[in-house]
Amino acid sequence: MSNNPKIIDFYFDLSSPYGYIGAQGIAAVAGRHDYAVCWKPILLGPILKQTGHKPLAQVPLMGEYSLHDIQRCCRRLNIDFTLPDPFPIPTVTAARACYWQQNFDAEAAKQLILALYRAYFTENRNISRAPVVLEVCREQGLDVTALTEALTGQALKDHLRQATANALSRGVFGSPFFIVDDEPFWGADRLPDLDDWLTEDGW
Amino acid sequence: MSNNPKIIDFYFDLSSPYGYIGAQGIAAVAGRHDYAVCWKPILLGPILKQTGHKPLAQVPLMGEYSLHDIQRCCRRLNIDFTLPDPFPIPTVTAARACYWQQNFDAEAAKQLILALYRAYFTENRNISRAPVVLEVCREQGLDVTALTEALTGQALKDHLRQATANALSRGVFGSPFFIVDDEPFWGADRLPDLDDWLTEDGW
Repeated sequence: MSNNPKIIDFYFDLSSPYGYIGAQGIAAVAGRHDYAVCWKPILLGPILKQTGHKPLAQVPLMGEYSLHDIQRCCRRLNIDFTLPDPFPIPTVTAARACYWQQNFDAEAAKQLILALYRAYFTENRNISRAPVVLEVCREQGLDVTALTEALTGQALKDHLRQATANALSRGVFGSPFFIVDDEPFWGADRLPDLDDWLTEDGW
Repeated sequence: MSNNPKIIDFYFDLSSPYGYIGAQGIAAVAGRHDYAVCWKPILLGPILKQTGHKPLAQVPLMGEYSLHDIQRCCRRLNIDFTLPDPFPIPTVTAARACYWQQNFDAEAAKQLILALYRAYFTENRNISRAPVVLEVCREQGLDVTALTEALTGQALKDHLRQATANALSRGVFGSPFFIVDDEPFWGADRLPDLDDWLTEDGW
């Protein structure tokens, strides 16, 4: 593209194990090509309604396979992983907190996303609960009093709803989903392809 | 495993583009590790009933993405591909013909499978139609008169039904699906992983 902004849009649900795996690798891929990552937490629930699919864990056969595959991928990539309970969970509050922090500091928001993923997938902390989200935010040095107030407002709700709607309008149907220069890549296992795509300027 | 038979079970539907892609690569992977491939055409229809999924092409968003991705994968791997019309199609007769040939000559059956895939995905020949299947079989040197008679019998019907039921009982929910030493790999894009798995004896 003539006016390439050199951005990778990274869509993920904070309850998605493959999103967690993708989050561990995307920054390094982007960095190799001097691209920035735009971290976009979304809610998979409304998206699955469009495709008519159930959450992965609830799909017969595929659910069992994917739990096996997630752990196999994590072993391969040396990524800590413990299947949390409950799983999956709604991540509305967690995602809103990330967008709140993005208003002030994109790097800190990225660190918060990684901390929320760690809390859920390595420490079994239930980040569907607002007190747990606030606890993680406090550990990350956020102004939890201001955040608590912002979480009651309409602006953050609209922000997340709009982010999910935008994702859908761009064809995002799963997590993680990467879009770079309008080229879509679905799945954490496609990060090496995305890397090659940027190296070779497509194929 | 102590009594490892060194076989890769390769499950696929003859109407599956990713199955077609997997079919181009599996023999080389197996050969590198001195494994044999057991080629098992199955019917995805009864399998999708179990998972509650629709055929890929009919799933909103995911269908469009996968058509884009299939062509991208084929360009990458230098595999000829033309999206056939109609697509997808039922492959009952084609699959039965492959099992018939397997009774006599496994290598010739493999060549027939590759020929049927080529006919459908590079020549737009509708292999859901029995006359087209027989034509491809004739080109491959099969005894089409004997095959035509066998296709009317119960044995081949039972064979394919049993193969699909066996696949389901082993957790197969998509195409292609590889099982090696009880380790499952779903998707043509997992062939490099399967290759590494055999090199490293798991991880």
